[in-house]
Amino acid sequence: MSYNTFGRLLRMTTFGESHGPAIGALLDGCPPGIPLTEADIQPFLDKRRPGQSRYVTQRREPDKVRILSGVFSDDERPEQVTTGTPIMLMIENTDQRSKDYAEIRDKFRPGHADFTWQAKYGIRDYKGGGRASARETAARVAAGAVARKIVPGITIRGALVQMGERAIERDNWSWEEVDENPFFCPDPEAAKEWAGYLDAIRKKGDSIGAVVEVRATGVPAGLGAPVYGKLDQDIAAALMSIPAVKGVEIGAGFAAAAMTGSEAADEIVMDDGQPRFLKNNAGGILGGISSGQEIIARMVVKPTSSILTPRRTITRHGTETEIVTKGRHDPCVGIRAVPVAEAMLALVLADHVLLHRAQVG
Amino acid sequence: MSYNTFGRLLRMTTFGESHGPAIGALLDGCPPGIPLTEADIQPFLDKRRPGQSRYVTQRREPDKVRILSGVFSDDERPEQVTTGTPIMLMIENTDQRSKDYAEIRDKFRPGHADFTWQAKYGIRDYKGGGRASARETAARVAAGAVARKIVPGITIRGALVQMGERAIERDNWSWEEVDENPFFCPDPEAAKEWAGYLDAIRKKGDSIGAVVEVRATGVPAGLGAPVYGKLDQDIAAALMSIPAVKGVEIGAGFAAAAMTGSEAADEIVMDDGQPRFLKNNAGGILGGISSGQEIIARMVVKPTSSILTPRRTITRHGTETEIVTKGRHDPCVGIRAVPVAEAMLALVLADHVLLHRAQVG
Amino acid sequence: MSYNTFGRLLRMTTFGESHGPAIGALLDGCPPGIPLTEADIQPFLDKRRPGQSRYVTQRREPDKVRILSGVFSDDERPEQVTTGTPIMLMIENTDQRSKDYAEIRDKFRPGHADFTWQAKYGIRDYKGGGRASARETAARVAAGAVARKIVPGITIRGALVQMGERAIERDNWSWEEVDENPFFCPDPEAAKEWAGYLDAIRKKGDSIGAVVEVRATGVPAGLGAPVYGKLDQDIAAALMSIPAVKGVEIGAGFAAAAMTGSEAADEIVMDDGQPRFLKNNAGGILGGISSGQEIIARMVVKPTSSILTPRRTITRHGTETEIVTKGRHDPCVGIRAVPVAEAMLALVLADHVLLHRAQVG
Amino acid sequence: MSYNTFGRLLRMTTFGESHGPAIGALLDGCPPGIPLTEADIQPFLDKRRPGQSRYVTQRREPDKVRILSGVFSDDERPEQVTTGTPIMLMIENTDQRSKDYAEIRDKFRPGHADFTWQAKYGIRDYKGGGRASARETAARVAAGAVARKIVPGITIRGALVQMGERAIERDNWSWEEVDENPFFCPDPEAAKEWAGYLDAIRKKGDSIGAVVEVRATGVPAGLGAPVYGKLDQDIAAALMSIPAVKGVEIGAGFAAAAMTGSEAADEIVMDDGQPRFLKNNAGGILGGISSGQEIIARMVVKPTSSILTPRRTITRHGTETEIVTKGRHDPCVGIRAVPVAEAMLALVLADHVLLHRAQVG
Repeated sequence: MSYNTFGRLLRMTTFGESHGPAIGALLDGCPPGIPLTEADIQPFLDKRRPGQSRYVTQRREPDKVRILSGVFSDDERPEQVTTGTPIMLMIENTDQRSKDYAEIRDKFRPGHADFTWQAKYGIRDYKGGGRASARETAARVAAGAVARKIVPGITIRGALVQMGERAIERDNWSWEEVDENPFFCPDPEAAKEWAGYLDAIRKKGDSIGAVVEVRATGVPAGLGAPVYGKLDQDIAAALMSIPAVKGVEIGAGFAAAAMTGSEAADEIVMDDGQPRFLKNNAGGILGGISSGQEIIARMVVKPTSSILTPRRTITRHGTETEIVTKGRHDPCVGIRAVPVAEAMLALVLADHVLLHRAQVG
Repeated sequence: MSYNTFGRLLRMTTFGESHGPAIGALLDGCPPGIPLTEADIQPFLDKRRPGQSRYVTQRREPDKVRILSGVFSDDERPEQVTTGTPIMLMIENTDQRSKDYAEIRDKFRPGHADFTWQAKYGIRDYKGGGRASARETAARVAAGAVARKIVPGITIRGALVQMGERAIERDNWSWEEVDENPFFCPDPEAAKEWAGYLDAIRKKGDSIGAVVEVRATGVPAGLGAPVYGKLDQDIAAALMSIPAVKGVEIGAGFAAAAMTGSEAADEIVMDDGQPRFLKNNAGGILGGISSGQEIIARMVVKPTSSILTPRRTITRHGTETEIVTKGRHDPCVGIRAVPVAEAMLALVLADHVLLHRAQVG
Repeated sequence: MSYNTFGRLLRMTTFGESHGPAIGALLDGCPPGIPLTEADIQPFLDKRRPGQSRYVTQRREPDKVRILSGVFSDDERPEQVTTGTPIMLMIENTDQRSKDYAEIRDKFRPGHADFTWQAKYGIRDYKGGGRASARETAARVAAGAVARKIVPGITIRGALVQMGERAIERDNWSWEEVDENPFFCPDPEAAKEWAGYLDAIRKKGDSIGAVVEVRATGVPAGLGAPVYGKLDQDIAAALMSIPAVKGVEIGAGFAAAAMTGSEAADEIVMDDGQPRFLKNNAGGILGGISSGQEIIARMVVKPTSSILTPRRTITRHGTETEIVTKGRHDPCVGIRAVPVAEAMLALVLADHVLLHRAQVG
Repeated sequence: MSYNTFGRLLRMTTFGESHGPAIGALLDGCPPGIPLTEADIQPFLDKRRPGQSRYVTQRREPDKVRILSGVFSDDERPEQVTTGTPIMLMIENTDQRSKDYAEIRDKFRPGHADFTWQAKYGIRDYKGGGRASARETAARVAAGAVARKIVPGITIRGALVQMGERAIERDNWSWEEVDENPFFCPDPEAAKEWAGYLDAIRKKGDSIGAVVEVRATGVPAGLGAPVYGKLDQDIAAALMSIPAVKGVEIGAGFAAAAMTGSEAADEIVMDDGQPRFLKNNAGGILGGISSGQEIIARMVVKPTSSILTPRRTITRHGTETEIVTKGRHDPCVGIRAVPVAEAMLALVLADHVLLHRAQVG
């Protein structure tokens, strides 16, 4: 894991700025012989794509991915498969609005990376947020789609389980519902409620936080490499690297603080010849290694800091001023973070499948 | 970051099993010329050491660290300093009780790593938990003490801010108080209350979860390497790698889910010539890079699963049974996790100081 | 260093196949604020470009590089500079001849990677050699040009010092001469002789081996990280990773086998206030660390195995057969390896400048 | 691969100084379930151990290795095996002569790492060469012995094939002979001749260079990860990291410079159902991947710079002076480099077996 690379054996390096010619992910370490075309990737990008409902930014990008390397087909083998060489996934930028960037150049937007990137590098590509833009996450989603193909027996799904103070009702959970509303909400009642709630926030020019939950089923017991290649450690890193994420938890998570040992410790029984944990408070991971139970992780996404209310800030020359962040923004960036979280979990799991195979065979 | 190595440029590799001859940390990448003796490290180990109050395990280990390499002194330069070569920190194990391990060999303790390590490796050193034992964290604490010496301008402190359902009162926060009670609790009122609370849990043979908070002051703006070497990403990985940790958050953390953008986004003002964020909801990190504000992170530590209540479990041969985990255990493992969390934060920050210097100079 | 990534802190990941849509290098870890445009890179690509004399392959590619990310300019700062984010260098493939690939698909060319890639991956992109093609080295040259900009005080130059059995006369060495002949030969007498020599080989449809020497001046003392980040170790890895290279040596190299200690050990004197080694048999590196003397490395490039003589081989189905490798090939691939060796040395040195700065400041 | 770590998945980190309390290797990534005791390691250390003949340094160290972690046995499974956790191999130093270090402290020995380490770190442990001492290679040999156990089907052997200007006669090669003389020489005639030759050099207080050859049989086709995890690239790095090594070559090596393509390119035939290369000029590696043929590598070891002839040098304060390196030294350090080269090759091959398994299964 270096500056812009994620993963141990399955390594994704992303590149590109929001308003540059292209963004993309270079994925190295993919096993050979896996069927892969752009059609395997595009649906996941389409899920993340902006401009699909009034609840997300109106930036309009087709987000068409091209595979520039690492795959092969010929007359003899017409189905395109991976070759084991690096897979270059490129997405050209098409909707770089030409506009006046003077304000964003000179003033640091509170809650954004403007100040810190300037402090670090002494220069920043401020156009559309440059590399700090959430646009980078499209590259993750593309790479995550490839990761899924590496572990076809594992199902990875995500959902928005809280918007503002409004959490879903867990008894209402329906995976089918997730694709039926613009929030990736698994609870049909909550989804209805959220529509009006978010409309009100959007109309005020404000924004709201959220909690995303991702789950993986079909994960075999044994993935994870203690003590510094733990599966939960890598999931935490993966999710925390997503823009605007301020917390990550596994299984019972922060609720475990209030639990006693007798409540928390999952009893184990045999079920159809397989070990089954009665509660799975551990979220499928014990001692850094998968238990064969469902992997459950959550992350909190802060409200976007791009709001219409004037805020106090400073200029890059250190003088106090005010700023209003206009432009196209998501009133709840947590929504579009759902496919991104899925992609990161897919990358971690595929990586650990390879890592486990390396050491244990 | 490989199996048992943490860090990018400052790399700690730990080794050793709970009941083997020794544990330790091999720290590579330390700059040369830094004064370092065992006396710089021992106080931190003493903080983590078991057997110091009735609230922690009664295992008695002196936990004496020896520096076997990477330092030098001679007549001309009597003060021992680092040389830039690997620093081997070794702690011999002395209190490996000889006891009957048959039960722990045959039955998987619920909530422990027994089942998953067996599933992964097909073999495990079950004596005292082997490598999955929290004893490994002594090595982290030793290495963390060295990390502190690398960044003398940064102050890293931790505290227990919640035990069970009982959180501290933030207005009572006193760093001095942290060393005055056996809980690393910064709130004297809470500390008093926790004493009776934990006694009751301990007497029942039960255990309880907790939340640890770590903070760092004096961190310059600019540390962190987006987008996959983010400072918060590395802190999340560092804390999540600690045994029993099930969640990590930065700044406002999960509370950000319920915030609006106008509440969350920190306004920036100038204060004595320096930028100051009015709220620091970001916990000192924006876009993965430190802002110069205080770094604030929290982690949840689940209750130890070693309790006196009989629990259902299975044997390694897949038959159902019951287990009672006897032996020396912490009723609230979160307490002794405080110096461990500090150590991990110190390692991450020192690593990022070096990483930043590499790229930006 | 993973599968397709080279470097420790300055990390180049290359991608692409010979007859795919594009090849390129993704360079991560470059410091910010370095002036960089495509015009800084193109001259080095032009040096490596095929089709420039009758002594190199007649494949005609413009090899135009595009920088897709990691640089910035605006009205205020019209000079384009690096931003510290990943630099994507893309070169589109334009001369993928449509031809009959049946023979190369079915028969393994002796001396080529055909057999081993098939054995490893079970599939290979055989068109033009796929990823095993020397075309990949164009990406290295592009990245190496960026590396040079990171260490402007260091001058890196290469030359062909032996072709077949004909070595240069060292007393004739002239760096100016290197650009005056189609062989990158520093000895004008040898260059004349080589012209006829190589013509004869080329006309026979045969090929010939060569030795490339690369040198760096202006390298400060102190680069290199013992004991497994040694400067010479990394140079050896860098040069050995170039296609067709079968050996690497530093300074006196293999000639040191026949030396006595009294001949080999460089005496040190003071020269104008600076240490100077009287012989520099060490090639500028002692104990894995640069001495401040000129860095001198050599690599041997085997003759290309693509020759017109029929050779015995086997098919991918394991039956014996014969093959003649037609097509456009270099009679002495060592020639075009010169700019590639320079690029790799530049990458190693820039990497170590950053690595040294990280640890020692 | 970081400062003091070698390997990709099987990672060896060494530590310790020549005259410190101990040296050792921490080996991470070893598969579980491999039988391993100190008795598996000690014979290889004994081969490298000093003091065994008049041709090597008279320093007397028992070089007893202790395994401090990563292995397990119990009543049920009395055979000690690896557990998949880090294996700590420690060798205590016992023969640190107390002597006057003033000269070596103040004057840089020509040909040694003294000057460059001082230039890099501003401090160095000069006692016995500190970490730059060849004593570090004992740790490699210990780790290499473990690596051999990971790949039991691969046989790795080394020999001294040239001493000074005197090369062996290849037709005389006998592996049995290697253990019969104090030079690891495979040619009985050469061994006899070398005895008198080296005696003469030793008596003059001089030293001589050498060439070591290492070979591996039983290596399956398919190991190596192009294009920057090539097997030959890693072998080159591994061997070049050994002290005093100034060059590495694979197969025909530098001799390939003088070959034509028709001479160099190995024809392939079928032999008993397996591909066989008629010449193996490639040394078992094509395109960075093993071909299934014997792996053949050579390295040149310069003569030790510790000789009795006075040499010009400078002090650490930059004044010119003279030095005579007294003490216990090897007249031909190449001899004891043989088991070290074997160990490094074993580490590379075991690492690549794991790496291949990860990606290709």
